[in-house]
Amino acid sequence: MASNSFGSLFRFTTWGESHGPAIGVVIDGCPPQLPLSEEDIQPWLDKRKPGQSRFATQRQEADAVKILSGVFEGKTTGTPISLMIENADTRSKDYEAIKDVFRPAHADYTLWAKYGLRDYRGGGRASGRETACRVAAGAVARNILGPKITIRGATVQIGPHKIHRERWNWAEVAANPFLCPDAAMVPVWEDYVEDIRKKGSSIGAVVEIVAEGVPAGLGDPVYDKLDAGIAGALMSINAVKAVEIGAGFAAAIMTGEENADEMRQGQAGVPEFLTNNAGGILGGISTGQNIVARFAVKPTPSILSPLRTITTKGAEIDLSTKGRHDPCIGPRAVPVGEAMVACVLADALLRHRALSVRL
Amino acid sequence: MASNSFGSLFRFTTWGESHGPAIGVVIDGCPPQLPLSEEDIQPWLDKRKPGQSRFATQRQEADAVKILSGVFEGKTTGTPISLMIENADTRSKDYEAIKDVFRPAHADYTLWAKYGLRDYRGGGRASGRETACRVAAGAVARNILGPKITIRGATVQIGPHKIHRERWNWAEVAANPFLCPDAAMVPVWEDYVEDIRKKGSSIGAVVEIVAEGVPAGLGDPVYDKLDAGIAGALMSINAVKAVEIGAGFAAAIMTGEENADEMRQGQAGVPEFLTNNAGGILGGISTGQNIVARFAVKPTPSILSPLRTITTKGAEIDLSTKGRHDPCIGPRAVPVGEAMVACVLADALLRHRALSVRL
Amino acid sequence: MASNSFGSLFRFTTWGESHGPAIGVVIDGCPPQLPLSEEDIQPWLDKRKPGQSRFATQRQEADAVKILSGVFEGKTTGTPISLMIENADTRSKDYEAIKDVFRPAHADYTLWAKYGLRDYRGGGRASGRETACRVAAGAVARNILGPKITIRGATVQIGPHKIHRERWNWAEVAANPFLCPDAAMVPVWEDYVEDIRKKGSSIGAVVEIVAEGVPAGLGDPVYDKLDAGIAGALMSINAVKAVEIGAGFAAAIMTGEENADEMRQGQAGVPEFLTNNAGGILGGISTGQNIVARFAVKPTPSILSPLRTITTKGAEIDLSTKGRHDPCIGPRAVPVGEAMVACVLADALLRHRALSVRL
Amino acid sequence: MASNSFGSLFRFTTWGESHGPAIGVVIDGCPPQLPLSEEDIQPWLDKRKPGQSRFATQRQEADAVKILSGVFEGKTTGTPISLMIENADTRSKDYEAIKDVFRPAHADYTLWAKYGLRDYRGGGRASGRETACRVAAGAVARNILGPKITIRGATVQIGPHKIHRERWNWAEVAANPFLCPDAAMVPVWEDYVEDIRKKGSSIGAVVEIVAEGVPAGLGDPVYDKLDAGIAGALMSINAVKAVEIGAGFAAAIMTGEENADEMRQGQAGVPEFLTNNAGGILGGISTGQNIVARFAVKPTPSILSPLRTITTKGAEIDLSTKGRHDPCIGPRAVPVGEAMVACVLADALLRHRALSVRL
Repeated sequence: MASNSFGSLFRFTTWGESHGPAIGVVIDGCPPQLPLSEEDIQPWLDKRKPGQSRFATQRQEADAVKILSGVFEGKTTGTPISLMIENADTRSKDYEAIKDVFRPAHADYTLWAKYGLRDYRGGGRASGRETACRVAAGAVARNILGPKITIRGATVQIGPHKIHRERWNWAEVAANPFLCPDAAMVPVWEDYVEDIRKKGSSIGAVVEIVAEGVPAGLGDPVYDKLDAGIAGALMSINAVKAVEIGAGFAAAIMTGEENADEMRQGQAGVPEFLTNNAGGILGGISTGQNIVARFAVKPTPSILSPLRTITTKGAEIDLSTKGRHDPCIGPRAVPVGEAMVACVLADALLRHRALSVRL
Repeated sequence: MASNSFGSLFRFTTWGESHGPAIGVVIDGCPPQLPLSEEDIQPWLDKRKPGQSRFATQRQEADAVKILSGVFEGKTTGTPISLMIENADTRSKDYEAIKDVFRPAHADYTLWAKYGLRDYRGGGRASGRETACRVAAGAVARNILGPKITIRGATVQIGPHKIHRERWNWAEVAANPFLCPDAAMVPVWEDYVEDIRKKGSSIGAVVEIVAEGVPAGLGDPVYDKLDAGIAGALMSINAVKAVEIGAGFAAAIMTGEENADEMRQGQAGVPEFLTNNAGGILGGISTGQNIVARFAVKPTPSILSPLRTITTKGAEIDLSTKGRHDPCIGPRAVPVGEAMVACVLADALLRHRALSVRL
Repeated sequence: MASNSFGSLFRFTTWGESHGPAIGVVIDGCPPQLPLSEEDIQPWLDKRKPGQSRFATQRQEADAVKILSGVFEGKTTGTPISLMIENADTRSKDYEAIKDVFRPAHADYTLWAKYGLRDYRGGGRASGRETACRVAAGAVARNILGPKITIRGATVQIGPHKIHRERWNWAEVAANPFLCPDAAMVPVWEDYVEDIRKKGSSIGAVVEIVAEGVPAGLGDPVYDKLDAGIAGALMSINAVKAVEIGAGFAAAIMTGEENADEMRQGQAGVPEFLTNNAGGILGGISTGQNIVARFAVKPTPSILSPLRTITTKGAEIDLSTKGRHDPCIGPRAVPVGEAMVACVLADALLRHRALSVRL
Repeated sequence: MASNSFGSLFRFTTWGESHGPAIGVVIDGCPPQLPLSEEDIQPWLDKRKPGQSRFATQRQEADAVKILSGVFEGKTTGTPISLMIENADTRSKDYEAIKDVFRPAHADYTLWAKYGLRDYRGGGRASGRETACRVAAGAVARNILGPKITIRGATVQIGPHKIHRERWNWAEVAANPFLCPDAAMVPVWEDYVEDIRKKGSSIGAVVEIVAEGVPAGLGDPVYDKLDAGIAGALMSINAVKAVEIGAGFAAAIMTGEENADEMRQGQAGVPEFLTNNAGGILGGISTGQNIVARFAVKPTPSILSPLRTITTKGAEIDLSTKGRHDPCIGPRAVPVGEAMVACVLADALLRHRALSVRL
């Protein structure tokens, strides 16, 4: 089934398994004449790559991206941009033991139920490694969006520990391994996650993505609402179980008075909103305010504690997972969430160009 | 922009404005030889239609559906099924007053920003009336899914008042105007919403949809994950601001041990899960357990309290909305949420048929 | 299967059977603020409608179009435009006799093979009546293309009788029932087709469509080539068996020297081509020259002569078709071919707008 | 614009320029558990590759395909199959001379008009080299179709010289460099094309593709007719200017009596057609007869004779093309045409599986 593509006008298709020779992405629908080189993409991949702190898997991957097509003399040509990342540190033997076992909370059973077989090495296609391709596509999407639109993310909750929003400082995000915008929360998370890690356990998290500078008018009414697109995009990331826009679930306890973002006439004739419960989207279309989305990431399924499960033959066993895993995968989902929002917005921008002005 | 369609193989397209002559839906991709008549569709529309209690808008619509094509001698033929519902109780004059005003928390400003004009009568295309077409499509989707798959929904929270899950009784849902499965909560909500209604205010809610009998293997990995499809589908419903699957945001505070749904060998060789934090979906593919999704509905934007806003000319005004509105739109979103989940599942079922077995 | 839609950004979906209550089309992706009324669409439908000469079927249909949505105060709003045409002159009883018979050269057998049933009344969905919806969509497409782009068609061959191209006069097309641009050919065709008609036989034809004023740059390389789009669009019209662009099949007997359209610098800095063997398209993208496409229409399958065929039960019979049929359907395909080319171009124009200029 | 993909359920996306490091194709939607190795794909590429006779370009390419993903332990897994072919014999310097020139009958001008720049080396993305990826995708499509469906092609006309159909012998096709099924025609073509080649000229051709064993019922009515899909697919091949199905343009001179393929009850209860003017497709759906399609290939644009043209700056020049080109590209289009028909049929088969039987 053709389910490995994302987007309509700005559309990318990813391929590759965790332990195959390489993974890659083909980006179709990038406008011509945009400057693009591997140096524009690599920093975003570096931000996502594993092995950068003791709070992440120790798999070592350079994640060096190669541009194979679509760029000529430093500029995009309008043709497909093929990007490839070779897999280096694959230890497939680690996975021999689980080839006939359904690891709980993994996709093992469902892939087997669907296809009758699975590439069990490192999760195959269901591995988080696939998200490197999303990040690469997101880097190209940012190029389309241009410098006026900024998309940033941060981890805002790990386990029960939420950041204090009044201490939010974007500059802190790059300064700690959790991508936490609240400096005072970092030591709390360090102790908490270190404890989780030592136990061989794992913990969930919440990530927030903010897109600034998005003009009013992007998105479509009804089924291709901008928030519907963002919700689908974020929910498609491995381990994500919930998505909310603006006030999100808190909107359920608000009255109409509390929820309504009142409007005044702002500078330069642009309407101004006095609050942003809408998270920058009304009726599926951007309002010009910041677009704010949050998503929950479940705990990494691979843990040391033995879990009850079954084999492909139906035998009941207890399974304990050793290996190189992230005690909290949340922070590594931050660049992936940013990338998906960038791709949704780039597609919406191109779609908007097709129809926004009088022909 | 072609954004009024939903689905791939089972695909429907809706049209029509709140105060135009009619609304309708064209369903393309319904398999042949399924029994179908207006009587199969009407009951679902009746469940959604307005004017049925003092807690809902008093607009009176018969919402009588007509089948215009695609059915011959009582059976679907494989050709497009065109359904039409005439608009009856349109009081467009009510809307003259707001034709040049951006109602806060409505799509008025964003539609105007996008298109430079809008059909202001009753919200035009952005009206909740469009959801009747979703419900009609959902009725056909249920026909495709067959009697073994049941999709039901309920309101589980209004404002701060959550139901008690241990009192959940599906039989209660049809017995109260809130579609509440907890009989003891009904009088609490009655008092609470009546108070909101009398003040001319409104309040948000949370709705839960449960799909039972879905076989393992539906859905696709990566970008067309079943949960990504459900998230996009539910978020595309008017006023929805958040979606979660299974444990949802609660997964953020769970450890790997708490979150993992352990497996045992069940009856008749089918694997059995001991819990359902996954909400019936792992790796984007159904597990065979109940699929459980929840979504938050924001309070109806139309309230009596004056709100600060601006006109299309930039004048700053205070706006108070009179008219026929729902104090809590949540319960009326229940059949819509059910319908969208039914459509996602019908599409996934058809897609699965294309690839599941050896050719 | 969702196969009743055409186009990507400018996308329409048709529905309805020949003898159902109505047929219709939903147009999604029309830009906002274009003037549109039923009077803009009706003339094109009138050009296609049956019963206008003794050389066409005597079925009487007003083919009066109604706009049900998407237009407000005389302008498009960017929302779906729903158009409906009621069926009036349906004589379904005429078709009782063939309900269990596969009429040769019709879709009867293949629809039955695919779906296991068929709406046999007047061909159901496979009726040429569906093309009225294409013509309606084409009228909206012309509105998007604007007055600088003209799309016209003519019948250029009936049976063995080809027009003389040096006598081509567009003004003649509207002056005869064959839509023939060669006045001297009209009496020849009159005699020829009248003879065919009296015998209860039928004959094939070739139609040519010319689009003038199309700017260079529309279309896409590789799989969405403009000529691939036109070929698919024209071949999707009932009874069409062949399509060619520019020199078409004659290119097979040309040398590179004969085929190449040489270029000179033209007026106002626009390149000029000295010939147009390419038919206005190179590498799948428009050159700025006239786009020229031709298609062959097979003879109407319904004829008086008995043909050998079988029933759904496998009985072998001889079938003679009486009723109201066109002795040569070619001329009635002219407005349909124009409409399809208009729709392909409108879609290409919108797609081009998304990517053509630097962001 | 996302225009480098083909197909819906069986969908492939190609990338790469003629003189970049590699070209490739990502196939999404191949069912699981099909045996697949590089050895299944390479023979089809070998049939297409250049440099195999004096009648084809002398560019030497091994065209060795590598499978990068989607196959595990010799079987497809249902995940994307990424195939890559490295470019070896690129002489980009040959193209420096034409970097600012629009070669007549090439895509040079239109690509420049669309994108404002072009990768001029060897035609970049518009090179016939892209068709290797189509052939690779076609090999996978054949695997899906299985051994009962055979798709073969042959050159049936070069310049004015048509084969004699009564001498058609499939075994001859592999025995001559023209893929000619008429042994007696081979020496005629040899003399004719050798003369063309010596003059530095080129000539057009007609290719025929025949698909045998296709069951009745594949394809869809209306816009996704099987013949519309084949027409679009074949017209999307570089240099193709015309497509016909069955009788094709000859249908224009047929009466209804001549054109109708009469039916009798055949062996094993399967209907039998007495002729095949329909080319195996009625109403857009396969009849069970052979599917027969023909397409015209224009002469290679690169010729020695000087042609009038202009530069990107508007200067008028005369251009003579030296280099390694095919005097008649027709025969090399045969495997490409086969591949495209195979891909259309594989997609139709998967689509059919989704809807053909009662759920």
